[in-house]
Amino acid sequence: MKVGIIGGTGGIGQGMALRLSQNHTVYIGSRKEEKAQAACEMCGYALKVLGLPFDLNPTTNQGVVDNSEIVVFSIPAENLERTIDSLTGLEGKIIVSLMNPMIRTDYFKYNPPEEGSAAIQLQKLLPDSKIVAAFNNIPAGKWQKLSEPLDYSVCVCSDHEDAKEKTMELVNSISELEAVNAGPLAVSPYIEAITPLVINIARFSKKRDVGVYFK
Amino acid sequence: MKVGIIGGTGGIGQGMALRLSQNHTVYIGSRKEEKAQAACEMCGYALKVLGLPFDLNPTTNQGVVDNSEIVVFSIPAENLERTIDSLTGLEGKIIVSLMNPMIRTDYFKYNPPEEGSAAIQLQKLLPDSKIVAAFNNIPAGKWQKLSEPLDYSVCVCSDHEDAKEKTMELVNSISELEAVNAGPLAVSPYIEAITPLVINIARFSKKRDVGVYFK
Repeated sequence: MKVGIIGGTGGIGQGMALRLSQNHTVYIGSRKEEKAQAACEMCGYALKVLGLPFDLNPTTNQGVVDNSEIVVFSIPAENLERTIDSLTGLEGKIIVSLMNPMIRTDYFKYNPPEEGSAAIQLQKLLPDSKIVAAFNNIPAGKWQKLSEPLDYSVCVCSDHEDAKEKTMELVNSISELEAVNAGPLAVSPYIEAITPLVINIARFSKKRDVGVYFK
Repeated sequence: MKVGIIGGTGGIGQGMALRLSQNHTVYIGSRKEEKAQAACEMCGYALKVLGLPFDLNPTTNQGVVDNSEIVVFSIPAENLERTIDSLTGLEGKIIVSLMNPMIRTDYFKYNPPEEGSAAIQLQKLLPDSKIVAAFNNIPAGKWQKLSEPLDYSVCVCSDHEDAKEKTMELVNSISELEAVNAGPLAVSPYIEAITPLVINIARFSKKRDVGVYFK
């Protein structure tokens, strides 16, 4: 598949690119193409020394939209509206949200917008796009660690069945991830809230990179 | 430990009694003591034919409070206030909430009270008790299936460290459950919301008895 990552130069974005570009055509997007270029060079070099194949392409965030069947939003939730305002051509696209709005107080607190979740907000901002929440709960530190398998469950929810199915197929193509169908987009708050929960668990239980597995 | 279960004659309550009474002194409570008596006879008989030891005692819900160090509230969230009004002597007790308020629409929807979660509501109703949220996400069908281990993670959160530690000890004494310290009671909404999430996963993914494991 042709998959593009908006905000692809962050830690999670680069980690996704490392994992996805072995099986898919990946576009790393950034507000500045030079940053995307630098990220692609780094990721490409790492994959090359590991002897792994890859198809990685630097571009702008708009370039991601223009070239990809699946557009992943890997940006801080607070940048969402500004980023969308800067883009055109999102209509009809599958858009994957892995955003988990949260704030840090004496613990990590889920801080959804009034719509209920970042994914629901995104669907309201883009009524003609197909929003899917997925990849929300994978520990950031594990994406880039190619020496270890990614063996978590990935909740996938959407109001668009075709988009959900395609995203589940994408999930299942990565390492040992297992996509689970969690139902309509309305359940996305429960999925997003798992991320502050596991960060709290890591902190209070003195663990690292806590992820979730359903069984 | 002396552990009592308010609402101990429901499926989850009886399942907990089956698991706990092998290592602890368990009081099964009900509004009507005859119902508790019948549940104890059933559970005791099952444990006897399996050749397992047990210490099971029928009583009223008030009897649970009077006899137990840890009082488990295993009742529907909507019965919470009425049940509390009928009891005395809860001050200073460790009270474990495994309640997950939810409603069924076209999916299972988390439906917390305005306080934020059932556990937070309970703490506000009982400011002199030590509320702990735990055991929220264990699939109901697995509690009673003694032929299978219970090998899930159990999120435990509370604002009372001593109560949290004692509850984690209780969790870790049951089958292969693993207690994880999730922090303060404020995270209880994220934990409670996992239950409608896993019920939705079971439904939309055509699975049964979906539980959660953190790794």
